[in-house]
Amino acid sequence: MTDAVAKYRARAAAIDSLLCVGLDTDAAKIPAQFGGDVLAFNKHIIEQTYAFACAYKPNMAYYEARGADGWRDLADTMAYLRERHPDILTICDAKRADIGSTNAQYATAVFDHLGFDAITLHPYLGGEAIRPFLERADKASIILCHTSNPGADELQGLDAGGRPLWQVVADRAANAWNAHGNIMLVMGATYPEELKQVRRIVGDMPLLVPGIGAQGGDVDAVMANGLDRGGGGLIVNASRSIQHADDPAAAARALRDDMNRARRRAARAHQYCES
Amino acid sequence: MTDAVAKYRARAAAIDSLLCVGLDTDAAKIPAQFGGDVLAFNKHIIEQTYAFACAYKPNMAYYEARGADGWRDLADTMAYLRERHPDILTICDAKRADIGSTNAQYATAVFDHLGFDAITLHPYLGGEAIRPFLERADKASIILCHTSNPGADELQGLDAGGRPLWQVVADRAANAWNAHGNIMLVMGATYPEELKQVRRIVGDMPLLVPGIGAQGGDVDAVMANGLDRGGGGLIVNASRSIQHADDPAAAARALRDDMNRARRRAARAHQYCES
Repeated sequence: MTDAVAKYRARAAAIDSLLCVGLDTDAAKIPAQFGGDVLAFNKHIIEQTYAFACAYKPNMAYYEARGADGWRDLADTMAYLRERHPDILTICDAKRADIGSTNAQYATAVFDHLGFDAITLHPYLGGEAIRPFLERADKASIILCHTSNPGADELQGLDAGGRPLWQVVADRAANAWNAHGNIMLVMGATYPEELKQVRRIVGDMPLLVPGIGAQGGDVDAVMANGLDRGGGGLIVNASRSIQHADDPAAAARALRDDMNRARRRAARAHQYCES
Repeated sequence: MTDAVAKYRARAAAIDSLLCVGLDTDAAKIPAQFGGDVLAFNKHIIEQTYAFACAYKPNMAYYEARGADGWRDLADTMAYLRERHPDILTICDAKRADIGSTNAQYATAVFDHLGFDAITLHPYLGGEAIRPFLERADKASIILCHTSNPGADELQGLDAGGRPLWQVVADRAANAWNAHGNIMLVMGATYPEELKQVRRIVGDMPLLVPGIGAQGGDVDAVMANGLDRGGGGLIVNASRSIQHADDPAAAARALRDDMNRARRRAARAHQYCES
């Protein structure tokens, strides 16, 4: 087990939470009291939610949209997280992937300069291209498998030799690319049947699950279908529904509690079926 | 024909060149005389090569690897290009793609703040997700189809309903996603046979062709297989072989000339076959 994966598992167990809080901070949408200060708002969200969070996941697009200023806010947010909450997994939702020599530059940017534990990646160029990420054994590579968007199946659902493309990606990730045991997959909450199927392919590999909340994913369906054999192994992200809540702490706590109730129900149903 | 596509075609015709110069500036590798100043080096490369360039293509990874400073260098390079060489196509080689609402943020960053004419995109989330890019009718979306890396076929070559996945991407791009006529495709120079095949699918759609030079792609094979019916329609990128040349102007001119000789040979062979 690698550092990033171990960090996630230890944190999720320690606080009994599979909740990942998305830090997709849109400067135009933060409350007036912050005066447009993205870093101050991020610190506020972190302090309101850290007790319930096994992971934080800023999406790069929201920072890049503000250029060099956005990058500085992201770097400062990461410095704050590393200092104050070093036990919480940090995921750079960057959805990168290029040829190998270029990926080495991205790995430097995300893992070394920004100091993230994990990054999200596109699989389209294959395992050879993403090796500069995979070879960072202390970091996690989280590969897009079945995404949460309505049109995901246009390519991901294509029949590729008797099974959908996303299942080939899951299989390659689990069985060909995972020499360091540091791969996770992105599986959208809006496709719960696929979540059930992916568990048969990847065993107990942790899954990052976006799409709860604003995108319409259902907590019960995710927990019924996605848990690993230990009753964990999910990193369930919510962004807008927590960041834009009147009381982010209450929203994070309520979602954590919802998720845990659904976990207990799923575990009982599973025991019933096994007995 | 949209602004970005028209801009490319007009420039390529005006200077009789299909050469795209990659600005993949690694601060650690620029000559000592620039004192590590990436912007000054970029301006130097631009002034040495613009007479031969139909396009410039910075790869984002090289700028992100230097954080906020890198972003500022990229923004300043773009401001310089827009002011001094507004007739040359600018391609942001970012290889992005996320869900729709996030892609809207990336489009703002790349098209509005940085002011690029075009961006490279992953196809894995499908046409629905990348709509915020496609709907910018004045900008070009350049979608990864068959990439130049050695392991490209691991996924791209999978049989997807009787043809390889990359051909499905080409077909969707040309026939389902291209309402505004502003799509181009990435086709690696290292796979010339695929270049021939893609022309049958996409007609005269412009193709961005990386992989000449350091990656080993062959100019003759690219020109023999990739030209459109007008004897153009390619944007052939070289990065390291020009940026790191002792004389970047001579290297750019020589490659432009090589490409044009190969174009003429290909055109003659084509006429011979047709007659």
